Amino acid sequence: MVQSRKSGGRGPALQKQPPGESVLLNAIRARAQAGAHSTKGLSRVRLGIGDDCALLRLHPGEELAVTTDLSLEGRHFRLDWHPPESVGHRALARGLSDLAAMGARPVAAFLSLGLPRELTEASGSCRPWPRTWVDRFFDGLLALAAQHGVPLAGGDLAESPLAVADIVLAGSVPRGQALLRSGARPGDRIYVTGSLGGAAAELAALGQSPQRFASATQASKTAPHLYPQPRLAQGLWLRKHQKASAAMDLSDGLSTDLARLCAESGVAAEVDRAALPLAAGTTAAMALHGGEDYELLFTAPQSAKLPKSIAGVKITAIGRILPASPRKPRVFLRTEKGAEPLQPQGWEHFSGGN
Amino acid sequence: MVQSRKSGGRGPALQKQPPGESVLLNAIRARAQAGAHSTKGLSRVRLGIGDDCALLRLHPGEELAVTTDLSLEGRHFRLDWHPPESVGHRALARGLSDLAAMGARPVAAFLSLGLPRELTEASGSCRPWPRTWVDRFFDGLLALAAQHGVPLAGGDLAESPLAVADIVLAGSVPRGQALLRSGARPGDRIYVTGSLGGAAAELAALGQSPQRFASATQASKTAPHLYPQPRLAQGLWLRKHQKASAAMDLSDGLSTDLARLCAESGVAAEVDRAALPLAAGTTAAMALHGGEDYELLFTAPQSAKLPKSIAGVKITAIGRILPASPRKPRVFLRTEKGAEPLQPQGWEHFSGGN
Repeated sequence: MVQSRKSGGRGPALQKQPPGESVLLNAIRARAQAGAHSTKGLSRVRLGIGDDCALLRLHPGEELAVTTDLSLEGRHFRLDWHPPESVGHRALARGLSDLAAMGARPVAAFLSLGLPRELTEASGSCRPWPRTWVDRFFDGLLALAAQHGVPLAGGDLAESPLAVADIVLAGSVPRGQALLRSGARPGDRIYVTGSLGGAAAELAALGQSPQRFASATQASKTAPHLYPQPRLAQGLWLRKHQKASAAMDLSDGLSTDLARLCAESGVAAEVDRAALPLAAGTTAAMALHGGEDYELLFTAPQSAKLPKSIAGVKITAIGRILPASPRKPRVFLRTEKGAEPLQPQGWEHFSGGN
Repeated sequence: MVQSRKSGGRGPALQKQPPGESVLLNAIRARAQAGAHSTKGLSRVRLGIGDDCALLRLHPGEELAVTTDLSLEGRHFRLDWHPPESVGHRALARGLSDLAAMGARPVAAFLSLGLPRELTEASGSCRPWPRTWVDRFFDGLLALAAQHGVPLAGGDLAESPLAVADIVLAGSVPRGQALLRSGARPGDRIYVTGSLGGAAAELAALGQSPQRFASATQASKTAPHLYPQPRLAQGLWLRKHQKASAAMDLSDGLSTDLARLCAESGVAAEVDRAALPLAAGTTAAMALHGGEDYELLFTAPQSAKLPKSIAGVKITAIGRILPASPRKPRVFLRTEKGAEPLQPQGWEHFSGGN
């Protein structure tokens, strides 16, 4: 480390004092272990928080899906807008959504957390054991973890001027059966789960009146921006029934993510604007470019028979896969005026203008 | 995302323009794939960068060791002190050192990288293809990855006001054979690999004259702070020969890390100050509390016969494991004056005074 060190040892943390890394780590470890006892994924975690590494065990014939997602204060959340429970929930949901897109079953989560010291200190509450920002962050993260049976098996902790949460998810999938982005073929139909644009619409509304951010609750499951629901059951269903030729999750917006799927598959695509399942209160632009819906985008051969809903979530055919043509765009949008190129306008870091 | 989005699509990146996430990702992917072809660990990575998750395959009878390490600008490195190659090298070395401590063999690395935009842009070089900070960061990271045969299999990328690199390492270890912190027993001898305090001494010297940071090179392997060498071969040897009862890596300083090993094992320990293998130009205080040496700390039964060096690195007995006593300190330092408590004075985040 490049900063000055402290001069001596310390006793246990006192209330309203910075708790110290080891005290904070022990608190997280206790909460993670309490949660792990109630999770179904426990059997694949042989060793959790407390050693240099966690140890995971796979069943014969499985492979491991691994994904990392970085959430940064000011980029992915705002401390003055998002309740801490939402920040924890969203960090985990991003990783779970990646597992869902592969048809993987969660095995374990890991979290690298960098926090300003004040977020580990109690605020001016009159309760005898006031809950800190980091306590409430873990409330949100561990509630979603419990819902999907995924133990928190390790991570790292550091003091940071900027709040940073990097989530790592490991999941299991039978060998050779993961849903990939690269399997779409010309003639396949394109589908999405749920509805699109809801997260963007909620964010826009909340941006108008940030005080409304505090009133949404994790339990209601009707706040697609604050508390997105990763489509794990739907991804598992698609993988088990071998219906999908390709799949990914919609994190950066349909126009951007579909172009990525097409690039990986070496194909093009056409989306019917009239077919888009718009969330309540959204525009077609929000559905096409809004991002963070964490729905699944997948393709299936025309001959595949798909149900109207999977595990309680509707699915909608929104277009078709075309052969790729050199020097032509990857994705077209079909409206009553015909087909026009659909530029990727979803989220991209380091892009011009922001 | 909570920031404003860009208004339209973009063409390929131009020189000295911000390259955009997808261009940067494609460049990283190309470099990672070029590196992966020369790595021994390739066979366990079935799918690398480019999909929602990477896919890892284990051989029968193996389990997976997973660790994450967060490196933050201003805490773990300084942009005005550390060459970008050193930042990349050190980020990966921290994770590899955790694998070494378990006796695991690297399978794959994942990197979540948050960077200020200017670190992705070319500086004012007159070369036709000026190398950016992020190019040089990957030079350092991928050189160490190639040395240890570990492919970069995935990660995440985001624009960030603070440079952030979270490294995730996955390694394989035969089931039930990982070296743990929890196995030390009273009577065991305590050992370390290499020498101690070198990283702290180098950092102190470099802090006096930061311009010297630029002259150290990754290839020289004689810069313990800038380019630490994770002890993977030594960890593998200890695990294969089943000599160690417990092990961990020395990242935060002997006084702090030995106390953690003792806590996990439920024991106490005594260190002989005269036995400490001091690196050139270091003091006993640097060796005890300096941290970031990334040597292995391990214990072995008195009856175990250990060589003087393992894979070219010397090992030194520095003390012994004692039974734990309630209300007594975990770790003692024996000097010519007798044994006195050794307070943990290594690195701890969120601790008082800094």
